[in-house]
Order: sequence, then structure tokens, then C-alpha cells
Amino acid sequence: MKKYADLTKEELRAEYELLKNKYEEYKMRNLSLDLSRGKPNSDQLDVSQGLMNVEMDKESCKSLNGVDCRNYGILDGLPEMKKFYADVLGLDPDYVTIGGNSSLQLMYDTLTRAMLFGVVGSLKPWCQEQGLKWICVVPGYDRHFKITEVLGFELLSVRMTESGPDMDAVEELVKDPKVKGIWCVPKYSNPTGNTYSDETVRRLASMKCAAPDFRIMWDNAYAVHDFNENGDKLLNIFDEAKKYGNEDRIFYFSSTSKITFPGGGVSLFAASPKNLKQISPYLGAQTIGYDKINQLRHLKYFKNKDNLHAHMMELAKLIGKKFDIVLAGLDSLSGLGVAQWTKPNGGYFISLDVMPGTAKMVFEYMKGAGVVLTPVGATFPYGKDPEDKNLRIAPTYPTDADLKLAVEILVLSVKLAAAQKLLCEKKFIH
Amino acid sequence: MKKYADLTKEELRAEYELLKNKYEEYKMRNLSLDLSRGKPNSDQLDVSQGLMNVEMDKESCKSLNGVDCRNYGILDGLPEMKKFYADVLGLDPDYVTIGGNSSLQLMYDTLTRAMLFGVVGSLKPWCQEQGLKWICVVPGYDRHFKITEVLGFELLSVRMTESGPDMDAVEELVKDPKVKGIWCVPKYSNPTGNTYSDETVRRLASMKCAAPDFRIMWDNAYAVHDFNENGDKLLNIFDEAKKYGNEDRIFYFSSTSKITFPGGGVSLFAASPKNLKQISPYLGAQTIGYDKINQLRHLKYFKNKDNLHAHMMELAKLIGKKFDIVLAGLDSLSGLGVAQWTKPNGGYFISLDVMPGTAKMVFEYMKGAGVVLTPVGATFPYGKDPEDKNLRIAPTYPTDADLKLAVEILVLSVKLAAAQKLLCEKKFIH
Repeated sequence: MKKYADLTKEELRAEYELLKNKYEEYKMRNLSLDLSRGKPNSDQLDVSQGLMNVEMDKESCKSLNGVDCRNYGILDGLPEMKKFYADVLGLDPDYVTIGGNSSLQLMYDTLTRAMLFGVVGSLKPWCQEQGLKWICVVPGYDRHFKITEVLGFELLSVRMTESGPDMDAVEELVKDPKVKGIWCVPKYSNPTGNTYSDETVRRLASMKCAAPDFRIMWDNAYAVHDFNENGDKLLNIFDEAKKYGNEDRIFYFSSTSKITFPGGGVSLFAASPKNLKQISPYLGAQTIGYDKINQLRHLKYFKNKDNLHAHMMELAKLIGKKFDIVLAGLDSLSGLGVAQWTKPNGGYFISLDVMPGTAKMVFEYMKGAGVVLTPVGATFPYGKDPEDKNLRIAPTYPTDADLKLAVEILVLSVKLAAAQKLLCEKKFIH
Repeated sequence: MKKYADLTKEELRAEYELLKNKYEEYKMRNLSLDLSRGKPNSDQLDVSQGLMNVEMDKESCKSLNGVDCRNYGILDGLPEMKKFYADVLGLDPDYVTIGGNSSLQLMYDTLTRAMLFGVVGSLKPWCQEQGLKWICVVPGYDRHFKITEVLGFELLSVRMTESGPDMDAVEELVKDPKVKGIWCVPKYSNPTGNTYSDETVRRLASMKCAAPDFRIMWDNAYAVHDFNENGDKLLNIFDEAKKYGNEDRIFYFSSTSKITFPGGGVSLFAASPKNLKQISPYLGAQTIGYDKINQLRHLKYFKNKDNLHAHMMELAKLIGKKFDIVLAGLDSLSGLGVAQWTKPNGGYFISLDVMPGTAKMVFEYMKGAGVVLTPVGATFPYGKDPEDKNLRIAPTYPTDADLKLAVEILVLSVKLAAAQKLLCEKKFIH
């Protein structure tokens, strides 16, 4: 088929009518499907079921350093958990602290702490400064943006490319001392699925920032979430930052939420010894410690890095299949000039750019046919997509059959909205 | 024996020499004992061991409302957990939210949120006000005091009495609009073990506060921690506050840390619907949700309030015995005029007031003989006991035999320090 833009008035109208009829058929089916949620299907959760019933007798509740994990003690994580998780991520265990069930909470804590007490390099607590700004790579993760939004930062958008944020734009923005940081999901970025190139990591690590306390919030949420053995490779940002004397710039996060159970796992925060030292008294005021029993449970379940790798490959089979279904469906949009999408090697999302000005329309069509999409604009600061074109596709939650059906309706809706827009613009309908 | 103060010079010197010789004997034994830590002994932890291995198969991981607890979802706690915990504490489930493994973290979160965003009734975020103050009931819980200290409040001490804080002093202090709140452990207060009287609760609930956003941090940490069926009764502060239109004043906390596993349990935050509504968007920015699996595990383990009650009575047997050992030991100080102590009906601590000006000396004597006490002053703001007299005794952690020995040395050290002080003051020694 030709590009929609190249169709004649009659061809386009015919196509529109055809699509519309097909759409009405789907609508009659009163479906209820969900492509909005970046959460695992129960098949994936079942892979981790063994974690739930790890044998925990009295004697085996002891940490390697003799601490009874059933009792108070240990603020920053079991030493063996630090070692294990550091090994998985290729980090220095001395940089690692283990948190609770939510890395998002660690990010929120980290930034509220910066607001109230400042960070290494701050002249005063951030809440005593006016007009602070924060860089958001778009499309990106709404919950990241929300944290900096509620804390009162002005959110500045920078375009995501195949190799990471548009670094020319980032380097320009950080010349402003009011710009205090940037959100990054460096591997299988939410939602594009792209991984930052070596050059991008190096530029982030080395760039000159006007703010003496600029921070990179490095959320490596999909660090081990490859679909196969040839996953994307990400440079270790600490290694790079160290070369330029910028290692205090990095606040590194990860969690097992999409390894074992979302909201029932273990999170990680890594930073330079200088940063950890500055944070220590505030962390000590905040809690006596995180849940060590769950740390121990995870350790007993995985035992070593190889088992975790095997576990991820099992998940990859399930998730990869879901991605294949979506990509196969989207393929029928090829050549029509109505959409572009990413083909990630891992992670949880596909980013779909439809014809500018039609994303909301697609969302409404989908809703009309009983399919929930992530709200348009959610991937942008303040929930506003300036071009009204980006849709975040989350393939993991529905069953294979539901997913296939939902993508059929998605493809139909994308075409329908594009045809309608073109007809409108040329004033064929009204 | 007579009061030390009534002894003649010769009698006192003889007593001192006797004590000193006895002390040297203990010192020779190179002991290593610990009375400092308000944490359970492994015997107590063993009582909850069944919680560790609650059967959790795929099907039973569902919440009553159909939510798979292994997955994301539910910000403020499983409905059945809210209901269960509300029932245990006599609260309205609509006021209840369930948190993570640490109620201290919930308190820190609550106050950092107040700093950054204010609370219901605030004219602006607290961090934008100058010279804020906070009431600390002394002796009290060091970790409470620490939170308000790091947040920059000036800490004001109010004396703890047998019936709760000295309410005349509290009512006077809250006339100052800079005074934003008060820390309370209303039942089996840490460390005195006293419970607030009905009148105290009513006065706290009804008092006129100059600050429109005054808050009572009501840490009901020992709500169900009676030593027998005749435990202290505490009025429901929400019921009282409602009568005076002050229910927004209450931030209520609790946790299972001293019911099941410290740092491996479930915490609770309760507040008026107005407060919960104001907090909701910030809580939503902070986390996707707390660990629902651990909530479910606790529910499956306890099943109902009666089982929890029976569980607490089992713990009470172990803890009550420890308290009896300490109180029997302290009894030999009776009539000497060198110490006063509390005899709680529950909780985790005994508060020991030694002769003013000798607490540090007692601490040093204990240390010299190999017994660790909670640092003197820890129960006061900024770690300073103005009278140098209060010691917090934590009986739960040592074994019965160790505890008995530690209390012998404690009694000896209290006497020794008192005798030494009296001799010094009368210039008998130097």
C-alpha cells in the first residue's frame, strides 16, 4: 500500500470507511484489554514462585557476619546482599547500599534529602534556592518526572535519541546553575527501549555543569533485562565519571522489582563514598534499617549471579514473545507513513510515535473499543506531549491472545486516526 | 540499711570500700554484657518463626479484592490488612494506611513531607518558616528526637510523669505558634513504661494550640505489649480529638516490629480522612506501594485478633520474666535514697533515675565491668540529661543468666557512684 499522504481523496475516503467499519466490529465485541501497565503477567511471576517458599529456619536466618536477620540492625544492607547485587551490576560493593521494596522510594528519599539538607557540593539545602530546574529525557518515565514536579522543579525536556538523550541539548542546559540534575534510564529506557551509547555515557560523565551539586539520577531499572544473550551493553558510569573527577555526580538506582516480585523485592542505591558519608546521618535518622529477611530470602533463592542470569533468560522467553507479538502487529503499519516505533533488545516497553496530532485520537479510539493505553502525554513532563504523537506500549501484562487482539485494534486505530486527520486537514469531511 | 545520706563518714567510707572490692571482683571476670538494646532476644523471635514459613502458593497470593500481591498495585495497604490492624488497635479502617517495614520511616516521611509541602492547616511548607520548635517528653525515645533535630527544630523538653507529659507545661508551650508538635509514646512510654492517663489524652486532644497546623506524633509502638491480661488502658485519641474538632491534629503510628520481627514487619499510619487526602498525591509520588507480600504473610500467620493476642501473651511470658529479674535486682536499692525506678505493666524498658550527677559515673563503672548501658543522655534532646540521672534499662536482649549478672553489677555501680559522690561532696576522699 502507498503512504497515506500520497493517497487521492477517493482512495483515502475508501480506506477510512473500510477502517471505520472494521473498528465498529471490534467495538461490538465489548472487549476489556489493557496495554497500559508496565507490570508482569502472572506467568512471569510464577517463575519466581520458589522465592516465596524459601526455607527459613532459625539457624539459617543469620547473616554471614553473624547478624540475626529477624532482629534490628544493619542500616545499609547485608554485606552479602551488597556483594551479590554489586556483582550483578558490575559495581564496587563499597558504593552500594541496599534499600527496601521500592527504588522509586529511594529516589524520592534522595531528592527530598537534597531539598532539606543539600548534597555533596551544595552551598545550601536545595529548598532554600529559587527557580531550580531539572532535565527530563522525553519520552520518559512519568513517575520520575512526578517526583521532581512535586518538589517544585521546572522540568526541561530533552529529546531521547537512539543513543540516549540529545547530548548537545543537555550540555547546553547544564550551563545554567539552576539546572540541578537529569533523570536517566540508561538501559532499555522507559519507554523507547534504547540504551545509552558509550559516547553518551562519557559525555554525561564528563560534561561541565554550572551547578556544583549537579546530579545524574541513574535508574538502571532494566540492567539485566535482555531478551537474549546479545543484549545491549552499557558502560559503567562510575568508571567514566571517575576519570573526570565527577563520580560524586552519580546517584545510581536499581531494584529486583522486574526480576522477582514488583513491590516485593529489594532495591539498591549506589554512590561514591563521599556521597554515602554525607547521606549517612540522615539515613540513620530515617530508619533503623530495611527488611533484611527479604534480602536473605533473595540471596538464598538466587545463590549466585549465574542463577539470576538463568532466571532472567526464563523471563526473557515470556517477555520476548510478547514483544514479538506487538512488533509483528505493528509491522502492518510499515510503509504507510503513519507511525514509527522502537524494537528494543530488552526492557518492558515499546515506544510508538503515531502521526503528530493523532495520539489522543488513537487513545480515544482504543478506549472506545475497550483497550486501555497509557494516557497520552504521560511520557512527558506535566503529562503534555507537545506533538501529541507518543504512545507507550506495555506488552507484558496481557495474555498472548489478548495482546494479539489489542495490537490489531491499535494498528487499526492508528490508521483510522491518521486517515481522519488527513481527510480533515484537506477539508474532505467537514 | 539506712539512707546513704544519713550515714556517718565512717559508715559511708566502709560501705564504699566494701562496694569497691566487690566491684573489682566483677571487673576481674572480663564480662561482656549488654543492657542497652531495646531489641528482642532470639527466644522471642523464635515465637514468630512460623511467620517465616507461611505457605504461599500461587493461588493464595491474591488479596481479598483480587489483587495479586506479587505484582504492583495498592498504594496504602491491602484492605484486609487495614481492617485487621485497625481492629487490633481499635481504629477506624478508613483512617488507616499500611506502610513498609519501619514505622520510624513513616514518621520521618510524615515530617519531611510537612517540611516540604506543609500539612492540613499550614499556611506554607514548614521549611519556609523560621525558628520552629518541637516538644519532646523526657526521658523519651532518642530516635524521635533525632528526626526533629536533623530537620532543624529547636527541641523543648517537658517532663514525663506517671500519667504522661506534664500537661501544664505542654499547654503553656503550645501558646507559641512556632511550636509545631509533640512526640508521644502514649502506652508503656519509652523508657518509663508509663501510660498516658485519660485526662492527659483528653488535654492533648482538646488543648488550644497557637499553630494552626500543630501535630501530635502518636507512636503507639507498644499498643498490645502488656505483660498480662491486666495491661494499661489507653483512651482512643481520635475519639477524644473529634469531640473538640481537633482530629486533624493526630498522626498515629504503630508497627509489628515488636510483635513479629523487628525490621521485618509491617507498619501503620493513621490519620483523619482530610489528612490522608492531603498526603495522597505526595505518597503517590514517593512509591508505587509497600510490600504486600509481607502484609499477606502476616495476615495468613495471625488470621485474627485473638491469635495475635495469644501470640503477645506468649511473648509476655518471656519478657515479663526479664522485667522481674531486673526489678528483683533493683529492689536491693530500696530505702537507700540513691535511686528511683519504674515498674511497667508492659513495653520494653525500665527507667532508672540514679542520684543526680551520678548517671555518667554509673555508665562508666558498668563499662569498666563489661556491661553496656544505653548512653547517658540518649533519652533527652541533643543527648544531654541536665540532671545526669536517667538510665534506660532494656531487659529483653540478654539471656536470663546474663541479665541477672548485669543487674547485680548495675546495683553495685549505682551504690558505688552514690557513695563516691557523697564522700566527694563532703570532701572525705580528696
